Amino acid sequence: MAPVGSKRGVLERLGAGEVVIGDGGFVFALEKRGYVKAGPWTPEAAAEHPEAGETLPNNRRSQLTGESQKHISSSIVQGPFKMRQLHREFLRAGSNVMQTFTFYASDDKLENRGNKLTFTGQQINEAACDLAREVANEGDALVAGGVSQTPSYLSCKSEDEVKKIFKKQIDVFIQKNVDFLIAEYFEHVEEAEWAVQVLKATGKPVAATLCIGPEGDMHGVTPGECAVRLVKAGADIVGVNCHFDPMTCVKTVAMMKAGVEKAGLKAHYMTQPLAYHTPDCSCQGFIDLPEFPFALEPRILTRWEMQHYAREAYKAGIRYIGGCCGFEPYHIRAVAEELATERGILPEASEKHGMWGSGLEMHTKPWVRARARRDYWERLKPASGRPLCPSMSTPDGWGVTKGHAELMQQKEATTAEQLRPLFQKADCKH
Amino acid sequence: MAPVGSKRGVLERLGAGEVVIGDGGFVFALEKRGYVKAGPWTPEAAAEHPEAGETLPNNRRSQLTGESQKHISSSIVQGPFKMRQLHREFLRAGSNVMQTFTFYASDDKLENRGNKLTFTGQQINEAACDLAREVANEGDALVAGGVSQTPSYLSCKSEDEVKKIFKKQIDVFIQKNVDFLIAEYFEHVEEAEWAVQVLKATGKPVAATLCIGPEGDMHGVTPGECAVRLVKAGADIVGVNCHFDPMTCVKTVAMMKAGVEKAGLKAHYMTQPLAYHTPDCSCQGFIDLPEFPFALEPRILTRWEMQHYAREAYKAGIRYIGGCCGFEPYHIRAVAEELATERGILPEASEKHGMWGSGLEMHTKPWVRARARRDYWERLKPASGRPLCPSMSTPDGWGVTKGHAELMQQKEATTAEQLRPLFQKADCKH
Amino acid sequence: MAPVGSKRGVLERLGAGEVVIGDGGFVFALEKRGYVKAGPWTPEAAAEHPEAGETLPNNRRSQLTGESQKHISSSIVQGPFKMRQLHREFLRAGSNVMQTFTFYASDDKLENRGNKLTFTGQQINEAACDLAREVANEGDALVAGGVSQTPSYLSCKSEDEVKKIFKKQIDVFIQKNVDFLIAEYFEHVEEAEWAVQVLKATGKPVAATLCIGPEGDMHGVTPGECAVRLVKAGADIVGVNCHFDPMTCVKTVAMMKAGVEKAGLKAHYMTQPLAYHTPDCSCQGFIDLPEFPFALEPRILTRWEMQHYAREAYKAGIRYIGGCCGFEPYHIRAVAEELATERGILPEASEKHGMWGSGLEMHTKPWVRARARRDYWERLKPASGRPLCPSMSTPDGWGVTKGHAELMQQKEATTAEQLRPLFQKADCKH
Amino acid sequence: MAPVGSKRGVLERLGAGEVVIGDGGFVFALEKRGYVKAGPWTPEAAAEHPEAGETLPNNRRSQLTGESQKHISSSIVQGPFKMRQLHREFLRAGSNVMQTFTFYASDDKLENRGNKLTFTGQQINEAACDLAREVANEGDALVAGGVSQTPSYLSCKSEDEVKKIFKKQIDVFIQKNVDFLIAEYFEHVEEAEWAVQVLKATGKPVAATLCIGPEGDMHGVTPGECAVRLVKAGADIVGVNCHFDPMTCVKTVAMMKAGVEKAGLKAHYMTQPLAYHTPDCSCQGFIDLPEFPFALEPRILTRWEMQHYAREAYKAGIRYIGGCCGFEPYHIRAVAEELATERGILPEASEKHGMWGSGLEMHTKPWVRARARRDYWERLKPASGRPLCPSMSTPDGWGVTKGHAELMQQKEATTAEQLRPLFQKADCKH
Repeated sequence: MAPVGSKRGVLERLGAGEVVIGDGGFVFALEKRGYVKAGPWTPEAAAEHPEAGETLPNNRRSQLTGESQKHISSSIVQGPFKMRQLHREFLRAGSNVMQTFTFYASDDKLENRGNKLTFTGQQINEAACDLAREVANEGDALVAGGVSQTPSYLSCKSEDEVKKIFKKQIDVFIQKNVDFLIAEYFEHVEEAEWAVQVLKATGKPVAATLCIGPEGDMHGVTPGECAVRLVKAGADIVGVNCHFDPMTCVKTVAMMKAGVEKAGLKAHYMTQPLAYHTPDCSCQGFIDLPEFPFALEPRILTRWEMQHYAREAYKAGIRYIGGCCGFEPYHIRAVAEELATERGILPEASEKHGMWGSGLEMHTKPWVRARARRDYWERLKPASGRPLCPSMSTPDGWGVTKGHAELMQQKEATTAEQLRPLFQKADCKH
Repeated sequence: MAPVGSKRGVLERLGAGEVVIGDGGFVFALEKRGYVKAGPWTPEAAAEHPEAGETLPNNRRSQLTGESQKHISSSIVQGPFKMRQLHREFLRAGSNVMQTFTFYASDDKLENRGNKLTFTGQQINEAACDLAREVANEGDALVAGGVSQTPSYLSCKSEDEVKKIFKKQIDVFIQKNVDFLIAEYFEHVEEAEWAVQVLKATGKPVAATLCIGPEGDMHGVTPGECAVRLVKAGADIVGVNCHFDPMTCVKTVAMMKAGVEKAGLKAHYMTQPLAYHTPDCSCQGFIDLPEFPFALEPRILTRWEMQHYAREAYKAGIRYIGGCCGFEPYHIRAVAEELATERGILPEASEKHGMWGSGLEMHTKPWVRARARRDYWERLKPASGRPLCPSMSTPDGWGVTKGHAELMQQKEATTAEQLRPLFQKADCKH
Repeated sequence: MAPVGSKRGVLERLGAGEVVIGDGGFVFALEKRGYVKAGPWTPEAAAEHPEAGETLPNNRRSQLTGESQKHISSSIVQGPFKMRQLHREFLRAGSNVMQTFTFYASDDKLENRGNKLTFTGQQINEAACDLAREVANEGDALVAGGVSQTPSYLSCKSEDEVKKIFKKQIDVFIQKNVDFLIAEYFEHVEEAEWAVQVLKATGKPVAATLCIGPEGDMHGVTPGECAVRLVKAGADIVGVNCHFDPMTCVKTVAMMKAGVEKAGLKAHYMTQPLAYHTPDCSCQGFIDLPEFPFALEPRILTRWEMQHYAREAYKAGIRYIGGCCGFEPYHIRAVAEELATERGILPEASEKHGMWGSGLEMHTKPWVRARARRDYWERLKPASGRPLCPSMSTPDGWGVTKGHAELMQQKEATTAEQLRPLFQKADCKH
Repeated sequence: MAPVGSKRGVLERLGAGEVVIGDGGFVFALEKRGYVKAGPWTPEAAAEHPEAGETLPNNRRSQLTGESQKHISSSIVQGPFKMRQLHREFLRAGSNVMQTFTFYASDDKLENRGNKLTFTGQQINEAACDLAREVANEGDALVAGGVSQTPSYLSCKSEDEVKKIFKKQIDVFIQKNVDFLIAEYFEHVEEAEWAVQVLKATGKPVAATLCIGPEGDMHGVTPGECAVRLVKAGADIVGVNCHFDPMTCVKTVAMMKAGVEKAGLKAHYMTQPLAYHTPDCSCQGFIDLPEFPFALEPRILTRWEMQHYAREAYKAGIRYIGGCCGFEPYHIRAVAEELATERGILPEASEKHGMWGSGLEMHTKPWVRARARRDYWERLKPASGRPLCPSMSTPDGWGVTKGHAELMQQKEATTAEQLRPLFQKADCKH
C-alpha cells in the first residue's frame, strides 16, 4: 500500500490531462440499503453503530399503531461496515475520489424540522473522514471533504453566519488532512461563492459544483456567469452535480466552460450528475418531479447510458467525471470501462464484467448469448414495463426560492396544521 | 442473542399462520455491487477473498486491448464483508430467512462455457452456509440451503445423474445443519420433483418453487398440476420464484393453491418474484425480454408497488413472501412494513423510513413536504423519463427447451463461429 | 354502367374465393364531419336536409348560455350530398359493399333517453337504401341492409317483440331490394340468432357479426360456439365487427372458423373491426375504454397497420374484409392495395396514392424522399407525441349486462339525479 | 342569403375585436378521402372531374405488377362535390373563412419531380376560387386567396422570378375578386416579404404566416424579427401556420406579437397550426418527424385539446384562429364551441354535438353516461394503445436549406440512382 503522501493530487492529475473518476451518491444508495432517512437526508450513518457492535434500541414497536405486537429480540451489529463497504465498492468500480459522507452535515441542517440526532455535526464529519481515508488508502484514491448549501442561507442569514457554518465543517476536514475540498449542491451561486472563499482560505485545492441546469441558478444567473464567479472566488475545478441527468449536466458544464473561456479565465471541469433521466425537469431539477424521491426507479440509467455519458463528458473537455444520487457502483464501473483506454486501466470490478455484455457468451440460452455484443446494447430502447404510466411528468414548480416564507427553516417538526394547506395546494395543481 | 436451537422452524411459523419474509436476489444485487458476473451468474463471491485480505491479481490489464496502459497497484480487501453486509441489510429490512448464496453452485454449471473458477462447488457451498448462519444468528432468521435447476437436465442427463448433482450440494447443507431446504428456479416440473425427492430424504422441511408463470412449465404443465406434483413429491411449501413480476407470481401461486386444494392436498404457499415489471413476458419470463439482463432498470418496482404486492400475496393466502432478482433491501422492507400489523413488528431498517413517505415532512421544500402521505404515493403513475422508449417489448421466443441441440451445455467457451449464426438469427427477428 | 341485375352476388363472389371489401364506419366518420351526434349515435343524417336545400333552423343560440349573442343568418344546404360523398369515397377506395346507413335505426333506439327526432325509423331506412343504391350503381358494389342490437333486448323484452323490431327494418330493405342483409353489432349471441332468423326468412343472403372478442359474448359464450349457433340459425357469413382492433378481430374470427369447422359446418368469414388499437380492452371492447368516444385519436391505425391487417385476415381464411368505427376511406384503400394482386385491381383512389409511400419520391426535402419505401414504413414504430400520456388504459368494467336495472331503456332524458351517482361511482373507480 | 358585398371584411372584424375562425387543412383531409396525392401535395382536385361527370380512365391496372388482373368497369362521378362538401363541413363547423384550395398551386411546383398534371396552375386557381365563393355565399364566410412558398426560391431564383410566380396566382384571385389574401407556409422570411409585397400591391387586406416555431426561420431569424419584417412589408395580419402543434404556434405568435409591439408597430395576429402533437420537433417542424406524413395518427389532437388551444390563443391576443394539416371539421367546431360566448353564436354543426360530451347522457351504458361532463374530458390523459411505440421521436435533421444542392428542384422524376444514397444516409442516422 502506497503512503498517502506519495499520491498525486487532484490538480496534478487534471493538469496532466488525466481523467479523475468520482464516486456515486451515498444518500440514495444508503437509503435503499436501509441506513439513511429520506426527508432529512442526513448522513448520521457515518457515525452510527460503531465497530464494536451494540444492540439497537427496540423502539420500532412504538412506530406501529393498532393491534397487539410481539417483541422480537434483535442484535444486528451495523458498525461502519456498511460505510466502508460502499466506499470499497466505488473504489473497486474505479473511483479515484472517496468523498466524505458529509452531505447536509451542518448543524443547522441536522436539527431541521424535528429531525432527532444522537450525534453532533462534528462527530459525523470526523467519522466520515476516517472512513473515507481508510478505504482511499486501499487503492489509488484521494479523499475529498465536502460542504453543501445551508438552510441558513435560504432563511436569509448573513454572509458571516453562513460562512461560519462552512468553517465549522472545514475545520474538521483540515484536522483530518483531506486531499482536497468540494463545495457542492448549491442552488444559488452567491452562497457557493461564499463557500469557495472559506474553502480557498485553507490552501487546499477547491472544486465547486452547483446543482443547476442550462437555465442557471435559482435567481436566473446563467451557467457561464456562475462559472466565472466561482473561478474568480477561487475554485480550481467548476461544474455541476445532482438535480439533472448526465447529458443535461454535460450540456450545462459545456456552457460553463464556454463562459470561463470567454472571460479569459482557466479552470478544470467536473460533472457529478444524477443517475436518473430528467428530460421533463424545469430549473429546480428532479426535486420538483412528482416521482421524487420514492418513485424514481423507472428513470434509472442503464450501464450503457452511463458509457455514453462518460464519452460525451470526455468529448466536452470534462475530466473530473463522477456521479450523484442514483449512481450505484456499476454505474461508476461503466464510466471507468468507457474510458479504460484513456486511463490505461480497467477497474477492479471489471473482473466481474465483460465489456459490452460479453459475459453473456456463457449464458445457457442461445438467444441471450446473441446479446453478447456492443451494437445490441447501444441500440436497445429499453421498455418501462409500465403501460399505464406516462414517459414524462409535469414538474411541480411553486416558484419560491431563497427568502420566501415557506422556505424558512424551523427546528420543530412540521405540524399537521402546516401540512394541510400544502396538501391542498398540491392537489389543486394536479 | 438467542441460540439457534431455540428458534421456531419455518413450518412451525407457517403452521401458526405467521408471515415468513424471504430475502432478495443476491446475484443481481451483487452484480451491481461488482462481485458477480452476469452470464455465468455463479456465486463464487461467497468464497472469494476471504477475511484475512489478499492482494487481487493484477490481470485486468490483459482485458484491455489497444494503447499503452499504466499499472496501478491495488490492494482492496474484499473478504466476505460484502456477503455479510448484504445478508445483514436484508435481515435489517425484515427477512426471516437467510438463503445460502448457492444459486447455480453445482459443479456442472460452474464449469459451463469457459467460466474460470478457483473454487469448487463444495467450497462455495460451505462458505455460503457459514455466512448465512453467522448473520442469521444476529436476528430472528432461519438459514435455508438452496438448489436450483442443472445444465445436466437440459442436456438430457439421466434422473440418476441429475439427482447426484443435487445430492452433492445437499450433503454440504446437512453437514452445516441448515434449518430447511429450498429447491428453486426450475423451468421443468419433472426436474423439480427429482430435486424435492432428494431434499425430502434429508428429513428437513422442503420448499419448492418453479420459475413459471400462468402458462405453466416449459412443457406446458399447468401451475395447478405442477403444484400437485411437487406436493406429492414431498414439498411442504410450494410456489414460484424469479422470471415474472410480483402480481403475475401471486396470480400463478393462486392457481397452484387452487390446484392443490382441488386435489384434496395441503401445503403452504410461497412467492419470490422479480422486482421488475414483466407485463410483456411470454412463458419463459424475463430471460426473453430484450432488456435482460443489462437494461432492466426502467422496470424496477417502487417500494409502493412492493407494498401492494405484499398485500395481494397475503390476501391470496400466501404466507412465505420474499423476492428474487432485482429485490434490494428497501423492497423487502416495504413488504415488512405493509405487513407490520399482521406480523406485530416493524423491521430494524424502518428506523430510517417513515411509513408512506412521512419522513418528507422534514424536507426543506414545501412542495416535497406535500408528498408526505399515503394517497399521494398510491395514486402516482411514475414516468419513465424515456420518451424515446416504448412501454413494452416483444420478447424473444426461440421456442426451444430441454433436449434441443442449441441448449446442450459445453465446457469450452462459446466461439465466434458459434455466436455468428445467433447474432444473425436475432437480427432477423428484430 | 352495368345494370344492377348483372352484378354477381356476395355469395357467388365468396364462393369463387374472391375477396369482398367492406366499407368503413359511417357513424364515427360523419360525427367528425358534423352530421351524427355521439351518444344517441343514430343515423338520421340519412334523411335530414334533402337535396332541394332548406334553411337550417336557427336554434343554436338557445344552446348557449350567458352573454348576449348576435344572430347570424345561415343557409347551408346539406342534403344527402354528405351521405353520397362518404359512400363514394369508400367506393373509390375499393369497397365492394355499400352498407345502408341504418345502424341503430330501430324505433326503440331512436327514441331513447330524450333523443329528439324529426324522422321515423322507416323514413331513415328508406332514405339510406336509396343513397346506398345510387352510389353502388356507380361502380362494382352491392347494397347490404343492416340491422343491429336493440335496446328492447337489453330491457328483457320477449323474443317476439325483439323480432318485430327487426322485421320492421327488414321490410324496408326488401321493398328497396337490397342485395343482401347483415345482422351486426350484437353483444349477445341469442339476440343475433333471433335477428338471423328474421333475416333468413327473406331468402336474401345473410351475414352476421357479433361485436365480441376472444373472451366471447357478454354471457361468456365462446367465439367458436357463437359462430356455430349463428350458422345453425341460418347465417351464410359469420364474423365480428366493431369493439376491437383489427388483429384482435382476426384472432376472434379464427376461433369462430375453428369452431364451425370442428362442428362439421360450413360458412364464409368476415371482419369489420375498429380502426383503433385496443390492446387494453376487456370483454366489452372499446366502449369501456376511458377514451371512448371523444379521445380515441391516439389509437387510430395507420394505413400500414391496415395493410398488415388485410394480409393477416386473408391468411386466416377471411374473405369479407371491411371496417367499422374509425375507418376512413384511406384505411379501406390500404386494404384494397394490400390485396390488389389477389383481387387483380387497384382501387380508383390509388390514382392518388403511391404504394408504400412511393409518392414521396416527389417530395421537396431529400430526407422525406428517403421515406419512399416499404421497409421504412413497415418497421416504423410511430410516436404518440404525448409524453404525459400512458400507452394503455384501465377499462371501465361495471360488470352489468342484459337484465341489469342500470341498462333498462327509458324514453325520457337522463336527469341530473340519475347522473350524479354515476359520476360518483366513476370517480371512485379512477 | 346575404349578398357578398354586404359582408364585413376581415380587417373590419378583427378591428372590432371579433374572433375570426379559419378553416382546416385541405391537403391532408382530402388525401385521406382519396383526392390528393401525398408527395407532390398539389391541389389539382379543385379542377378534376367537373360537375357533369365523366368516366375515370381505367389506367389503374397499369400500376399493378405481377399476376393476371381482371378488368372492372367503373364510372364514379367525382365532380367538385368532394370540394364543396369539405368547404361546407368547415362552414358548418364555424369557419368564417373559405380559403381557396391553392396550396402549392404554382406552376413551378406543379411540375416538380415527375408529377403529371392535366391542368394548368391557372385552371386550378380559378376552379378553387369558384368553389370557395360558392360555399362562402351559403353562410357568414369570406373568401381568402392563398399563395405559398415556391420551389424557385429554394433553387435560388431571383426576387424577380419568384415574384412573377406569385403574381400569376394573384392575378386569378383579383379577377375572381376574393375578399383578402394570405401568404402562408413560408420557411424563409425573405421569400414571405417578397410575397407580401406582391399581395399588398393589389390593395386587398394581406395576412402572412410563416411555418416556423420559436427557433425562428430556416436562417435563424427570430419570430419577433420575422413579424416586424412582415408588417413592414405590408402585412395586416401576421402569424404562423402548419409545421407545429397548436400550443407551440401560440407560443411563437406570442413572440411575434412581442416583437411587433416592441418595434412600436401594429398588426393583427393569426395561427393556423397542425392538428398533430409535435413536442419533439426541431426547427423544421413535423416534416422532419419520422412519422411524416403517413404515420401521424397517434399525434392527432382531440377536440378537447383543441378547445384548450382556442382558449390559449384567445388569451394570447390572437383573434384569427384556424387550423392547418390534420384539422378535420370537428376540430374547427371545437374552436368555435370554446369561443361561443365571445362570438355570441354556436356553429351549425353543434346541433350534432353536446358541449363537453353532454350527448353521452343518452348513451345506453351507464358508465359511458358517467363521462358526460367537462372535468372528465379535461383531465383525461388519452392512451395511445401502442405499448410497443415510444411517445416521442428523434426528428431527422439534415441541416440543409435554401441553396443546398440536394434541395434543387427538377422536372424529371426522381431516379432510383438518386434515391439510393438517400436511403443509405437515412439508414445510417437511425
